[in-house]
Amino acid sequence: MGPHPAVAAIRLAVRRVLHDVLVDPSTSPPTRAAAPLVLVACSGGADSMALASALAFEAPKLGVRAGGVTVDHGLQDGSEVRAAEVAERLRLLGLEPVECIGVSVGRDGGPEAAARDARYAALDTAAERHGAVAVLLGHTRDDQAETVLLGLARGSGIRSLSGMAQVSGAGGRYRRPFLRLDRQTVRRACLAQSLPVWDDPHNVDPAYTRSRVRHEALPILEKALGKGVVEALARTAQLSRDDADALDAWAARAEAEVRTDVRPAKAAPADAEAPAEPGAVESGVAEPDGVEPDGVEPDAVELDAVGLHALPPAVRRRVLRRAAIAAGAPAGSLFARHIEEVDRLITGWRGQRALNLPGRVEVRREGGRLVIRQG
Amino acid sequence: MGPHPAVAAIRLAVRRVLHDVLVDPSTSPPTRAAAPLVLVACSGGADSMALASALAFEAPKLGVRAGGVTVDHGLQDGSEVRAAEVAERLRLLGLEPVECIGVSVGRDGGPEAAARDARYAALDTAAERHGAVAVLLGHTRDDQAETVLLGLARGSGIRSLSGMAQVSGAGGRYRRPFLRLDRQTVRRACLAQSLPVWDDPHNVDPAYTRSRVRHEALPILEKALGKGVVEALARTAQLSRDDADALDAWAARAEAEVRTDVRPAKAAPADAEAPAEPGAVESGVAEPDGVEPDGVEPDAVELDAVGLHALPPAVRRRVLRRAAIAAGAPAGSLFARHIEEVDRLITGWRGQRALNLPGRVEVRREGGRLVIRQG
Repeated sequence: MGPHPAVAAIRLAVRRVLHDVLVDPSTSPPTRAAAPLVLVACSGGADSMALASALAFEAPKLGVRAGGVTVDHGLQDGSEVRAAEVAERLRLLGLEPVECIGVSVGRDGGPEAAARDARYAALDTAAERHGAVAVLLGHTRDDQAETVLLGLARGSGIRSLSGMAQVSGAGGRYRRPFLRLDRQTVRRACLAQSLPVWDDPHNVDPAYTRSRVRHEALPILEKALGKGVVEALARTAQLSRDDADALDAWAARAEAEVRTDVRPAKAAPADAEAPAEPGAVESGVAEPDGVEPDGVEPDAVELDAVGLHALPPAVRRRVLRRAAIAAGAPAGSLFARHIEEVDRLITGWRGQRALNLPGRVEVRREGGRLVIRQG
Repeated sequence: MGPHPAVAAIRLAVRRVLHDVLVDPSTSPPTRAAAPLVLVACSGGADSMALASALAFEAPKLGVRAGGVTVDHGLQDGSEVRAAEVAERLRLLGLEPVECIGVSVGRDGGPEAAARDARYAALDTAAERHGAVAVLLGHTRDDQAETVLLGLARGSGIRSLSGMAQVSGAGGRYRRPFLRLDRQTVRRACLAQSLPVWDDPHNVDPAYTRSRVRHEALPILEKALGKGVVEALARTAQLSRDDADALDAWAARAEAEVRTDVRPAKAAPADAEAPAEPGAVESGVAEPDGVEPDGVEPDAVELDAVGLHALPPAVRRRVLRRAAIAAGAPAGSLFARHIEEVDRLITGWRGQRALNLPGRVEVRREGGRLVIRQG
């Protein structure tokens, strides 16, 4: 007799990700001294305990070492004892090494964002210290649906609808094997294996936005729109992510085509392609790697207005955003209304004066060019 | 003293749209015999009564004739009397001509879709009979938010998140002046003008999905996510529409590049570009206008697998969808899972057998080509 169907489902999901990690050339050198290590990030809750159990079962069969990390956010009384208990449960599952890391949570971006930042920083450090090839995270399809709704509330476009990626982080370190499994299946797998789990009281605390989305918004949405809402939201995430990727690729190409300044600006984002300006390197002015010589102010980012005008609005706005960031505007402070105003210098030009963007960045129309410069 | 701010807001919104209609070359021939006619579609509810009042006020100042149409769906007892009353109210506002049209509502696609289809068919007919240059619709930003949520529940991608367009229909006939105004402002404008309005009981009937979204889902979403949800949903509509348009344009170009069959297939959609196959016309096989000679079966649609593989997934899936429709698959029956299966013939080729799509369309990998053919 095979395992309970829910247990089979979580194991299959983990097995697929382990296969994926093992065939990834960046994580599996052909002559490896020791077996590769995969860590599971575990809060002690049902989703991540199920994940830990499946990793403990599947890893040995594939010659993978399985370890675990639990993070003590120090936000509740007795959290230290709780974290030590979770670590002990991971050891009982056969994971090795198991680490319990205490972090101090700041306040940037609100309590949920601050806790998340602290958690990922700790996981990054642990992964590097142990030389782990991957860190597994227990997010389910239901978490994904919640994330899409939270992104929808920002109203900032399809990138914010694309939820969490199956693979993310430096070098694709983070993997989410359960992103297509529903929470109910994962919890059933805990029951079927008699795994002790811990329910974080924050998950039902209506002070937290995600908790309100989970316990109030989604049930009402299901009642109004039908049972398939969670699945529809998760599908929207995947489709939106692919669409956003394609449009970003188009915008990167288009930016290179409409840029008329001869060298890349200081703060060009890592994924920006260098402007393909003919003769740029030969002129001796450009720094091929985008690094400015010490003490020299970066030139302005300059864009061809006619070229911009010919682009579809969705691509033009992305190019303008990229250019503003390249000129030094901080991405996090640059909102849709800023970009719309810049866009009107192209599509509604009637002699407007220069605009100010966050980060002391000024945008000015000069004849047939848009000039973006940090003051 | 000027008008009430809400009245000023609805009049400004209508004035902008009338300006827009008047400068549109397709609707304003330079030598026009009579003043152009703009119709308002009015249910007698607050939104469309406000719209009618603003049209009646603004149209004469711009040399535009203002008329009105009300549609009797025949779904409630006394609806005929009700519609006649609405028509009378429109006449009292000074609209001329005013027409009251009875329609019979079918069952296709559910009660809401069937009523909508019947209504637009009646409005189209009325617009053509009266030679109207535009038909104004009273949808507000709140209606738009509801439409986005309804689209989200389908989970079929960003096109279904893009809500209603400011301009739609044949030749851009339908205009929605209130799409960026909130419902509260529009209703305040009714109160301020003491306009009698009629509340359709269907709008609060929980048997209708839109009514549940309006009265249950959106209030709870606002409670969970904050007051800006309606605005965020409306902004998502605009951004998604622009993104979907840009990706569709890319897919149309990409389809032309990867098509290797020499002539367009029978059922190519109106907006599909003809394949730019060099030598197609010279070969004497292609019908330049895409019309097949009588009694001759259309050739299969053939696509280059290597070219498809090089496209971003979001663009490739759109090309595959376009090609399936060009080969005869009915757009309404073609779901994401169909396209995903076809996609695996490109991205996960391991000798799969032919696939069947709706409309007796078969997809088969033949060496380096994907062949899509109606049986």
